[in-house]
Amino acid sequence: MPPSLLAGIEAGGTKFVCAVAERPGAILRSQSFATRAPHETIADAIGFFRHAAAELGPIAGLGLASFGPLDLDPSSPGFGSITRTPKPGWSGVNLRTALIEGLGCPVAVDTDVNGAGLAEGQLGAGKGLDSFVYLTIGTGIGGGLILNGEPVHGLTHPEMGHLLVRRHDSDGDFPGTCAFHGDCVEGLASGTAIFAREGKSLADYAADAPLRLAVADYLGQLCASISLICSPRRLILGGGVMTRGDLFPLIRERTAARLSGYIAHPAAAGGLEDYIVPPALAAAAGITGALLLGARAAR
Amino acid sequence: MPPSLLAGIEAGGTKFVCAVAERPGAILRSQSFATRAPHETIADAIGFFRHAAAELGPIAGLGLASFGPLDLDPSSPGFGSITRTPKPGWSGVNLRTALIEGLGCPVAVDTDVNGAGLAEGQLGAGKGLDSFVYLTIGTGIGGGLILNGEPVHGLTHPEMGHLLVRRHDSDGDFPGTCAFHGDCVEGLASGTAIFAREGKSLADYAADAPLRLAVADYLGQLCASISLICSPRRLILGGGVMTRGDLFPLIRERTAARLSGYIAHPAAAGGLEDYIVPPALAAAAGITGALLLGARAAR
Repeated sequence: MPPSLLAGIEAGGTKFVCAVAERPGAILRSQSFATRAPHETIADAIGFFRHAAAELGPIAGLGLASFGPLDLDPSSPGFGSITRTPKPGWSGVNLRTALIEGLGCPVAVDTDVNGAGLAEGQLGAGKGLDSFVYLTIGTGIGGGLILNGEPVHGLTHPEMGHLLVRRHDSDGDFPGTCAFHGDCVEGLASGTAIFAREGKSLADYAADAPLRLAVADYLGQLCASISLICSPRRLILGGGVMTRGDLFPLIRERTAARLSGYIAHPAAAGGLEDYIVPPALAAAAGITGALLLGARAAR
Repeated sequence: MPPSLLAGIEAGGTKFVCAVAERPGAILRSQSFATRAPHETIADAIGFFRHAAAELGPIAGLGLASFGPLDLDPSSPGFGSITRTPKPGWSGVNLRTALIEGLGCPVAVDTDVNGAGLAEGQLGAGKGLDSFVYLTIGTGIGGGLILNGEPVHGLTHPEMGHLLVRRHDSDGDFPGTCAFHGDCVEGLASGTAIFAREGKSLADYAADAPLRLAVADYLGQLCASISLICSPRRLILGGGVMTRGDLFPLIRERTAARLSGYIAHPAAAGGLEDYIVPPALAAAAGITGALLLGARAAR
């Protein structure tokens, strides 16, 4: 009899990454699909897992780490569904139900950033910390607060990317790209927002371009506000903008400037090199987190 | 033999409230002292408790719910001390050590807002909620995040009052009163900041005065940002500005405007009447929280 497998989906607005593994760090097979209409994308994922299960063994549990906002209330009729997203056709879609019906295995669901946060906490830059925040700055901006190894949900789940920030002097007339808030952090500093200005990504700008300073200031305000509101021991910043943007020194400088020395702790003093850090798992955090959720579903 | 007592100190920037009780909700004796120089204020408190103990019985544990910022790291040499405050003479003062030396009983320490949050969670408007935030808007502005009955500390403790907000159009040239950040929320919307503008409190302004709208907008931004960053089930707003300011309807309206319907949950929809609420314990939350900390110290 073949061993039972863990399955994971990192469900993003641009692509779905699907993987099966014997354990979260040991992926046997993975595949990416462009995010199309819901029924097509779900069919792609179910096809991948059915095929993998037929060849490699039954799936004991599937973890879904998804873009959102999500309904994560187990007592809600819409548990596991995407609530309201500007992404056409996806508001109200219940990926969890579709996967349970299509694959017949238990499914655990959380936000993409909570999944990545779980992975960084168990295997990466949050290991051993009782409190940290994982942020992703990519197509959108999201954040998860991990306390004692568990993502915080509360009423729904954090939506840190939609924090309102002060406008940078050099960026006065850009309206922002967020469909809900216009010029919140996501509307000003996400990859989408950066590209909307001049059709370029941050790597195409000079090191001292005003836009780089503005984006770093917005992300520094986000980090400072998170520090003031929930006092994490560390902020882990991942996502495409961080990978390619060379922004860490600037963001640390802007965070420190915004805090003005108010948080009296060695970790929040000096250059913040150990306070604002890249993810250790880099791009693997998302799918690893989905597989960790899969292991929870299997239990 | 007399029964053993719980003791509590609500240590504020303006006054120290001291109480002894048989249990947190049943105060036997209390007294308030103006906050003077540290050694005088501490001597007042120790005198009160020695006198109470001589008449009523030994103190089993003392809870200290203090203004801050505080060093709350039990492994730190400065555990229990006030780290850096604009209040003259109080930076570096270790109230916890002074009380242990002066009274010889175990002392548990937390921030004033975390203490009040504990009290609201056990006996007040946070009862039964796995996640809520307690905010006080008074001389200063502070907030505590209570998850599963425990205040969140993380690196140090939340300092929600120092969140940076966008300036209201009608309030353009007021520099703000925060010694660290100028025009953070505390620097714009605390009782101190309100009084600094024209020597009046909010109750002295007309219902439609621009300053009322500005203060409500700043506090609405604070509530919206807290919702986005840590997703509490409820926000409980106490403190003198809230008691006398008649601000709840305006703050709810401004919070909803800032969130723009993004948090898809019934509690965060409509008029927010059950989402942003006054404390049930009102002014008693602070000293009740200190006594709850005293019960923890006694255990």
